[in-house]
Amino acid sequence: MALVNENFLELPQENVFASIRGEVEKFKVIRPSNNLIDLSVNDVIHSLGTHVAESMRLAVDEMAHTETFHGYGPEQGYVFLREAIIKNDFNSRGIHLTPEEIFVNDGIKSEIGNIGEILGTDNAVGVADPIYPIYVESNVVSGRAGVFRGGHWSNVNYLECVESNGFVPQPPNRPVDVVYLCSPNNPTGMVFSKSSLKKWVDYALKNNTLILFDATYEAYIQSPGIPHSIYEIRGAKKVAIELRSFSRTAGFTGLRCGYTVIPNELQVQTLDGRSISMNSLWNYRQRIRFNGVSYVTQCAAAAIYTSEGKMEVRKAIDYYMKNVMMMRRELSNTGIRLFGGEHVPYLWLRIPHQHSAWEYFRMMLYGAHVVCTPGIAFGPNGEGYVRLSAFAGRADCEEAVARLKEWF
Amino acid sequence: MALVNENFLELPQENVFASIRGEVEKFKVIRPSNNLIDLSVNDVIHSLGTHVAESMRLAVDEMAHTETFHGYGPEQGYVFLREAIIKNDFNSRGIHLTPEEIFVNDGIKSEIGNIGEILGTDNAVGVADPIYPIYVESNVVSGRAGVFRGGHWSNVNYLECVESNGFVPQPPNRPVDVVYLCSPNNPTGMVFSKSSLKKWVDYALKNNTLILFDATYEAYIQSPGIPHSIYEIRGAKKVAIELRSFSRTAGFTGLRCGYTVIPNELQVQTLDGRSISMNSLWNYRQRIRFNGVSYVTQCAAAAIYTSEGKMEVRKAIDYYMKNVMMMRRELSNTGIRLFGGEHVPYLWLRIPHQHSAWEYFRMMLYGAHVVCTPGIAFGPNGEGYVRLSAFAGRADCEEAVARLKEWF
Repeated sequence: MALVNENFLELPQENVFASIRGEVEKFKVIRPSNNLIDLSVNDVIHSLGTHVAESMRLAVDEMAHTETFHGYGPEQGYVFLREAIIKNDFNSRGIHLTPEEIFVNDGIKSEIGNIGEILGTDNAVGVADPIYPIYVESNVVSGRAGVFRGGHWSNVNYLECVESNGFVPQPPNRPVDVVYLCSPNNPTGMVFSKSSLKKWVDYALKNNTLILFDATYEAYIQSPGIPHSIYEIRGAKKVAIELRSFSRTAGFTGLRCGYTVIPNELQVQTLDGRSISMNSLWNYRQRIRFNGVSYVTQCAAAAIYTSEGKMEVRKAIDYYMKNVMMMRRELSNTGIRLFGGEHVPYLWLRIPHQHSAWEYFRMMLYGAHVVCTPGIAFGPNGEGYVRLSAFAGRADCEEAVARLKEWF
Repeated sequence: MALVNENFLELPQENVFASIRGEVEKFKVIRPSNNLIDLSVNDVIHSLGTHVAESMRLAVDEMAHTETFHGYGPEQGYVFLREAIIKNDFNSRGIHLTPEEIFVNDGIKSEIGNIGEILGTDNAVGVADPIYPIYVESNVVSGRAGVFRGGHWSNVNYLECVESNGFVPQPPNRPVDVVYLCSPNNPTGMVFSKSSLKKWVDYALKNNTLILFDATYEAYIQSPGIPHSIYEIRGAKKVAIELRSFSRTAGFTGLRCGYTVIPNELQVQTLDGRSISMNSLWNYRQRIRFNGVSYVTQCAAAAIYTSEGKMEVRKAIDYYMKNVMMMRRELSNTGIRLFGGEHVPYLWLRIPHQHSAWEYFRMMLYGAHVVCTPGIAFGPNGEGYVRLSAFAGRADCEEAVARLKEWF
């Protein structure tokens, strides 16, 4: 009798993002003629850059000739890409890494759960909250989250990111084994300063904590002095894995490519107290469980790091950031408390009058014909907030703002 | 203190394929001038077909324009590809499936372990042996394999495929919960007849066993009457997941795409006896853990199913099969017992004179300057055999055969 992993059955059958789609479909049936503006999406709207696309075409040409064809590639990713990553994303910020410390992946959503696979089920988990739900969900299915009661998983340490702490998660006063942090944070827009991130690294060094640091939105950081990588903090290579993605920077949501940094210094422990190199372990895992990312996609990713590629990335990011800054400016005198929009293309709105996030989502949908994301989608501390995304055309953002100003 | 999943530490540090590479490198140092022929590889040598490459270029063009850009796609794969799969791979053989039963994946190596994630750790596992090692390894890391003693994992039921049973694995006389089968088999070349596969389906129906059926090499089948899909057997939709790959058919080893069939009828059980739809569960898993395969790659995969694409696939398969048939013919009167080479591009050689697979591997390497794969790489019942691959150029195959004929 084939038995199921019953941890999967603990998760709610409908996830919040599916519920949003359901509500929107219902609205379209009830009000078919209304012109809805969807500001709930994470997805980019702009095409690949010209230079990136040209690199892909050249890679396809190589694949079409036996002399230049590429079959199985290294599970860890091609060295040409890993070297470009190190040179541009790390050396430029004074961080030294070797290609062996970079693992090209097919996106954070897969990778964050995959990393969980090499960790024991007994680890106590801490999660900055609110955060993208995969961090909690992947721990639920591997049996680390406990049971769901009153909106919380019993074994998850929710590191609250709320208005009173500036949305900056603080190290808890007890040891937690594995911690998920995200900066700039989706959805709140919080960024760690060097000193606030140093607190986490020091905590991790003291407690042998593993930090999984999601830096998906680092390229959206607008001010100098804010760390783009956790490795800007001394000692972080001993405690942190960093995850990056080309999705939001170069529009790779449909291509699937990012990377994971696992420094050689990073160790995890066995129950009897031995230290194991996380890098070796992950390298082993990739060899037996992964066949790498498409050669064509890796060529596209490498093209991001050329001067033309960088200009294309910058142009796309500037577009979305201009959207969100305009939205922030326009909505700032409406009486609604606004956060984010400085280093992420999202606004995080405090809901007035004690409405729940779902109530307010529906009110905005039917009142302003604008789709937002109820904050509760990102965890219990997201209740009382909604997120507005600037991954949309300028005209849509302007129209949404005009409607919201009238509606608030 | 971050704890490791200690199941990973049970696996041998060096896997067999890495050891082969190590031996070959050593040989090259000792005998630098020798012209080695490598017949140990699984990888294809021919480029993508012209039509498939052209479809990729068109897809890149779409991705390069905002009007036709594709961001996040469906986690399950695009319907255009899933429909092409059903029409060509299944309807043509009288099997009816819906797009909801097809899940596009990034390759069997990832997928087989991923499927293990939704199964409980308590399942008793059976594995056709020899077989590609990921089937056992993925169960080791999820804690289902027990301990490694005398070349065997204590909790794995090895379904022996040996000369005396024609390499056809037989259902055991006790219930096993999850069974991995592969037909045509890599490395032995065994194919299930309808009646031998029916025995397995009947066994699975009786015992509520889940069959994971790897049909990677189905397109290499040369004779009518041999099942290409397990769903050609009545009742199989109730018990079997089928895995397919575009790697060996269309040369996608460097692109990463295949698919998984999970029929709606398929159920797995909870400990308290409830039945759960495997299809719904997997669909849920994909939504939270996967972001799909590159749009460009899926367009390439769909192109395989056009008439030009089919011709290109057929041409590549014919090339490799002609290689192996020539090798089989030429080596057949050397006194070496040969298997396979009829429906897979591999020969499975019985080692004479009681040499171990590793001994014989080294003897062939230093004696004939031909690299084979020691059968033990594929499991304990591979001992006493080596595999020769026909994924090589015709001239290399001919030269290897000439050397081997002299050397045997």
